[in-house]
Order: sequence, then structure tokens, then C-alpha cells
Amino acid sequence: MTLVAQLENKINQKTKPPGSLGHLEKIALQVGLIQNTTNPVINHPHIIVFAADHGIAEQGIVNPYPQTVTTQMVYNFVNGGAAINVFCRQNNISLEVVNAGVNASFESSLPIIHAAIGKGTNDYQTRNAMTSEEAESAIRKGREILAATYRKGSNCVGFGEMGIGNTSSAALILHYYTKLPLEDCVGNGTGSNHEQLIQKKNVLKAVSKFHRLDAKDISAIELLSKIGGFEIAMMTGAYLEAKEAGMIIVVDGFIATAALMIAHHIHPEVLSNCIFAHCSEESGHRKMLNYFNAVPLLDLGLRLGEGTGAALAIPLIQNAVAFLNEMASFESAGISKSPN
Amino acid sequence: MTLVAQLENKINQKTKPPGSLGHLEKIALQVGLIQNTTNPVINHPHIIVFAADHGIAEQGIVNPYPQTVTTQMVYNFVNGGAAINVFCRQNNISLEVVNAGVNASFESSLPIIHAAIGKGTNDYQTRNAMTSEEAESAIRKGREILAATYRKGSNCVGFGEMGIGNTSSAALILHYYTKLPLEDCVGNGTGSNHEQLIQKKNVLKAVSKFHRLDAKDISAIELLSKIGGFEIAMMTGAYLEAKEAGMIIVVDGFIATAALMIAHHIHPEVLSNCIFAHCSEESGHRKMLNYFNAVPLLDLGLRLGEGTGAALAIPLIQNAVAFLNEMASFESAGISKSPN
Repeated sequence: MTLVAQLENKINQKTKPPGSLGHLEKIALQVGLIQNTTNPVINHPHIIVFAADHGIAEQGIVNPYPQTVTTQMVYNFVNGGAAINVFCRQNNISLEVVNAGVNASFESSLPIIHAAIGKGTNDYQTRNAMTSEEAESAIRKGREILAATYRKGSNCVGFGEMGIGNTSSAALILHYYTKLPLEDCVGNGTGSNHEQLIQKKNVLKAVSKFHRLDAKDISAIELLSKIGGFEIAMMTGAYLEAKEAGMIIVVDGFIATAALMIAHHIHPEVLSNCIFAHCSEESGHRKMLNYFNAVPLLDLGLRLGEGTGAALAIPLIQNAVAFLNEMASFESAGISKSPN
Repeated sequence: MTLVAQLENKINQKTKPPGSLGHLEKIALQVGLIQNTTNPVINHPHIIVFAADHGIAEQGIVNPYPQTVTTQMVYNFVNGGAAINVFCRQNNISLEVVNAGVNASFESSLPIIHAAIGKGTNDYQTRNAMTSEEAESAIRKGREILAATYRKGSNCVGFGEMGIGNTSSAALILHYYTKLPLEDCVGNGTGSNHEQLIQKKNVLKAVSKFHRLDAKDISAIELLSKIGGFEIAMMTGAYLEAKEAGMIIVVDGFIATAALMIAHHIHPEVLSNCIFAHCSEESGHRKMLNYFNAVPLLDLGLRLGEGTGAALAIPLIQNAVAFLNEMASFESAGISKSPN
């Protein structure tokens, strides 16, 4: 019997009408396939928040919050006061924060992973955001960070991000891979008002034109170089390494899924390890989920980033694995099956 | 400042873009209002599963599983092997099972709450399911059970049910309160096939006609007497008592929401304490949620009952309360607010 058949059989022997645990049955099946077993386990669920700054945010034309908020939020993470800290504590998820390229000088004693590729990207309105060497270096660093997470015993990881201006990069990435009108890829981010949104769309249209994103043959490294961010590049590497390590990957929101689009372009198989945590309120995210034919676990109108959607979805994944391992079967419980 | 304004203010001072925690912000606000404080707490979340049998299920014309499964599942609950056991253990929720009227003789030593009103209801095809005294007695018993739960220190409760045939009662209750065509209120229950569903609809149409459910002035007690179930009546009382005790009420699926429709008919204010856990795959449930203008936390395609949706949603409610209490404010974290 194939593993799929064994897992389906195990799920259908549980004391419940067949299919009655809906989406959780699919998750249980997927986790079994990822771990190549009918008895999967989730060890040390972990979230990594990648923080970086974006040159385009310096002038405040695409972002209602000033760029300095990225730095301030890194300190907030360290002090345990951000939403992702609260949700990780509440759900027994360990948390690490990575300086992927924030425009600040952090003391080396600050309890974060110091992996900055630079102090923010260049403003990609008139030049590339980063060099291809920087993009490659960020991907490599993301891989290293993930390899260390895996070595420490985690087999379930979610990636979050913090970076004022990074919904602009994500919108451009969505636009490039789907060829949907840029107009439909750009959303309100942290909270643009009507005029700011129009301005954001106009700026990003010019960016798309400048970098010729209507082309079909832009490599992952080129795309990151043109309009990426250091946190996005690092997450790309993290996805690739997590896939190779056989980990469960819990996919967060708009920016995290943009990075997944790039990782998927490099290595399409990464998808089989991905569980989509939620659908973000940021309008482009549903288009990304559609691109992957993904049905997310949650749809709570979140648009915060930081990995908050992943942190909220991990308990559901744990419940799915628990029912697979712990529920009685019809036979073991002596329960009549439907004569259907 | 009103409590609503104080809560909104507290939520908006948190280090996140306003509104970016979506549905969880509404839950945090609601829990604050239920507990009349800006610092709510969730103590000892608790689920009570009410089990009872239905006379209509004896002949197997509306239910693919035999009636004996209700009894078998009670033993499964006691042995910890059902889905609700697994989810309660996983999410640190305490669990009690009530014999509200199962067609069995349980040893008094069995660790359940022995509160049977009878050994299943009458078959309501040709007579009333129960007497009005039995309906009143079940409501009273439900109130007593909840009062005890509250006294033991819980302030957050969800109600589940087990009762072969009880989606038929729930469909009839939905039909009575909404006057939607009965056709649209009846679903597949634990898994009727196409022919069984047609038969179920025909049987319930005849039941609706026999009990004149097209009338407008059927009291809650009368409705329970005509086509109710002991577990549904007991849940009705439980909702009413939980509301009076000021508890958070986590509303599960199709049958649990049917009982809420009756409780709401008796005391409309019960709704302000209700958080809707999920939308069931049982087709009538979305119609019930629409009736209450309710947006559920989860939509996972569940159709198992037992309170499983409530058990899966409680962690989200705990996360909502945690962010309200534990997240830093812009001021405390020294973070720049949007100039918007």
C-alpha cells in the first residue's frame, strides 16, 4: 500500500464520519507525507522574523510609517512586546529575529541573529535594489540560518518579516510572476489612505517599467536584485533549505508568500512542504494563494506580517497531527461503522 | 470614556497598524465587554458534550449510522479516544460529558454527568418528541450543570453534542425560525448519500407538516417538545445560564447553533456573550450564522460536532486576549506612529 493510501486508511478508521474533520484531514495527510510516516510528530515549532529596510521607503512615498519603524520594531521584538512575541509565547513557539539588513547599527550583544547584508536596499526607482552578489549572499545566509534551526531540533518552521516598504517589493514580485496588472497587485500595506495608495501604484508602475518586469525571463537572482529586499532574499533561501531538510513550512502572509514565489521558481518542489497559514487582508495575497491553488487554514483579516498568521495556524497543525496519532479507531473503540 | 472607547483605544495603541489584527481585534473588544474590563482573562476554558438519543433515528431513515453509536461514542469520550478528547488535551481545555438522554443504562460510576431526562426522545414523526415538562426539566438541568461549571472557576465555555439523528432536529429548528424552505435547511448530517438525503428531506417535510412548523407563534418549550432533543434542550439551558453568569460562550456547529437559536428566542441578549467558533460543512449552518449576522473564526470544513469547532477556536480567543494584555503600546515601546 502506498503511504498516501496508508494515511487515508488511518484517517478513515478514526471514530468520526469520513471527511468530517475537513481541512485538518488534508493537513494530517500532508504532514505524514512530508515526514514519510503514518505517525508524524511536530518538534519545536519555530518562527524566524527577518527584518530589513528598503531604500524606496526613505522618502515615505509608498509607506505611511517612517523607515525608522523597522529598527524600532526590532527592539520591540527583542523586548517581547510585539504581536509575534505574544502569539509565540501563547502557543509555545520559539522565536528568533534576524537582522537581514536593517538601516541601523545594532550592538552585537543584542539577542538577534546578526546577518545584515547591508543597511537597507537601494531605492529601486532608479537603480537595482541590490547586487546579484548580495542577493546570492542573502539566500545563502537564509539557508545557513535554517540549517541551524533544523540542527537544533525543529521540524516545523514559519517565516515572518518586518520591513517598512516591503509590501511594494511583494506587489512587484506578484506582478512579475502572475503578469496580473500591477494595479491589482498593490494594496494598502500598513495602512495607506486613498491618495497614498494612488501614489504607491503610480510609483510602482514606473518601477515596473524601469526594471522591465513585463519580461518573461528574469531569473530569481535578477528579480531580487532589481526590486527585492534583503529579508525577502533571505526568506527565499530559508524556504529552500527547509524543504531540503524535510521540514513542515508554515507560510505566512503577503511578503512571506512573495518570497515563496521566488523559492518556488528556483525549486518548485518546495510547495509540497508548505502549509498555508492564512489569507491576509492585503489584497494581493489572495492572488498569490490562487497562483499556488492554496487553501489557507485561517482567514482572519490579518495584515500585520511578523509571521503572526503562521503563529496562529501552528496550533491547528498540531491538532491535526494529534488527531492522526491519538484518536481511537472504529475497531479499537468498538464502534459501528456506517453501513454506507 | 465608555468601555468600548477605552478598549478601542487600548487596541489602537498597540504596536501594529490599526486594524491589522482583523477579527482578533473584534474578539478582544467583545471579551473586554463581556467581562466589563480592559484587562480580560480567560480562566479554565471548558467544553461540555451533551449526548442524547432521538426516536426518529431508531429506524435509520434519517441517519446513516445506527442509534447505538451514540452510546458507543459516550464510552469513546470516557476512554479519551474521540476527536473532542484529543483537541481538548491538545489545547488545555477541560472536558465533561453529560448523559442528557441516551438510550442506554450507564453504570453510575461512569465518569460522566448523569442527567438523563429519558432514554431517547419519541419518534416525532407521529407524536411529540418529549413532554413540555421534560423540555423544561432539561433546560433546568442544563442551567444547573453550567452553574456548577462556573462555580468551579471557568469563565469560557463551549457546548458540543453527540446524538445520532440530531441534525434532523437542528434542520427543523432552523426551518422554524428562519422560515427558509425545509429543503434548504436539511443537509447530509454524518454522511447521507444522495438517496438517503432525499429520503431525509421527505421525512422531515412530513414532520414539519405534522407539527405545523409553518406557524409563527410556537414557544421555545413547544418547539423543543415537538421536534427537539434532550441534548438540544439542555444546551438551551446551558446557554441561558452561561449568559447570566457572564461567561464567554464559544458556539460550535449546526446542532449547538440550533440550540442557540432557541436560547436566543427566550433571551436575545445571550448573543452578546457568544463567539462563533466556526462554520460547519453541514449546509444549514451557514444559514444559521447569517441569521445571527455572525462571522465565525474558523472555516475548516468540519462537520463532526462534539464541540470540536469550539475546541479548535479557543486558542484563537486566548491569543486575542493575550495581545490585548501583553503587547507593548507605541508609547511604551518608543515607536513612531503613522502620520496618517
